Amino acid sequence: MAEKDLGELFLHTLKDVYFAEHEILKTLPKMAQAAKNSRLKQAFDQHHVQTEGQIQRLQQVFSLLDQKPEGAPCEAIQGILAEGSEVMEEFAGGPALDAGLIAAAQAVEHYEIARYGALCSWAELIDLEGVETLLEETLDEEKETDLLLTQLAEEAINIKSA
Amino acid sequence: MAEKDLGELFLHTLKDVYFAEHEILKTLPKMAQAAKNSRLKQAFDQHHVQTEGQIQRLQQVFSLLDQKPEGAPCEAIQGILAEGSEVMEEFAGGPALDAGLIAAAQAVEHYEIARYGALCSWAELIDLEGVETLLEETLDEEKETDLLLTQLAEEAINIKSA
Repeated sequence: MAEKDLGELFLHTLKDVYFAEHEILKTLPKMAQAAKNSRLKQAFDQHHVQTEGQIQRLQQVFSLLDQKPEGAPCEAIQGILAEGSEVMEEFAGGPALDAGLIAAAQAVEHYEIARYGALCSWAELIDLEGVETLLEETLDEEKETDLLLTQLAEEAINIKSA
Repeated sequence: MAEKDLGELFLHTLKDVYFAEHEILKTLPKMAQAAKNSRLKQAFDQHHVQTEGQIQRLQQVFSLLDQKPEGAPCEAIQGILAEGSEVMEEFAGGPALDAGLIAAAQAVEHYEIARYGALCSWAELIDLEGVETLLEETLDEEKETDLLLTQLAEEAINIKSA
């Protein structure tokens, strides 16, 4: 069997992140429902809409590569989201719930930043210019979402939990 | 039962990251052994030593809080590391292995950046000044490690895999 190259690593990771985005899409409404702070609720709702767009962008990437969009089970996101659910249950109704939700969401964002960061750098190396542009748009959105969550945490939400 | 507050969320997350650091400590020698590029090998070895220091810092934090150092199983890091192992197996001996190792390590670093970032902001809110300083030292180290990995990826390692 031939050794697998960077193109195959790219496709492997693309399927991983395609699976992850679908899991995140299912989880965001639960986080929005659980959040007490109205701006945090709104941030989760907005990110839900954004995630739908990110999935469409991934479908465009698969299409540019002449591949069928397909997810591959991603244990990392499953573990990250399971930990988020655990915090939601354990801190339900309490003063630290919103802080826990923000931290869970930031773990998700950082996972995506790592994955899209790798995909962008590989897309550049294997000269997938159109693909790189699409993935960079999503990478920028994930970084902005992480910043927004930090702002919400610093502004008011954590203080109310203290 | 009283509702759990931010102090309890802090302790919950501290145990999570204490568990995670031990898992990472066990995994880094395998990554160093697998890496082909000598600078990448060295980066993993250095981060192994650094992780030992980070575990000691966490022990100091537990001690400042009058708590026994204790880990709580962290599904997130288990999932992230499982995915890394899978990439190590699937791309073993091939040209994309180092690129895959870097991406796996950056997923770990980003998880730690998210967790230590939350711990630092909560330590500030609940006035744990000495604790915050210790955790910030580790947060800075994780960010530096992530940057170093990006540099290694950009400099040479990914190009050799292409």
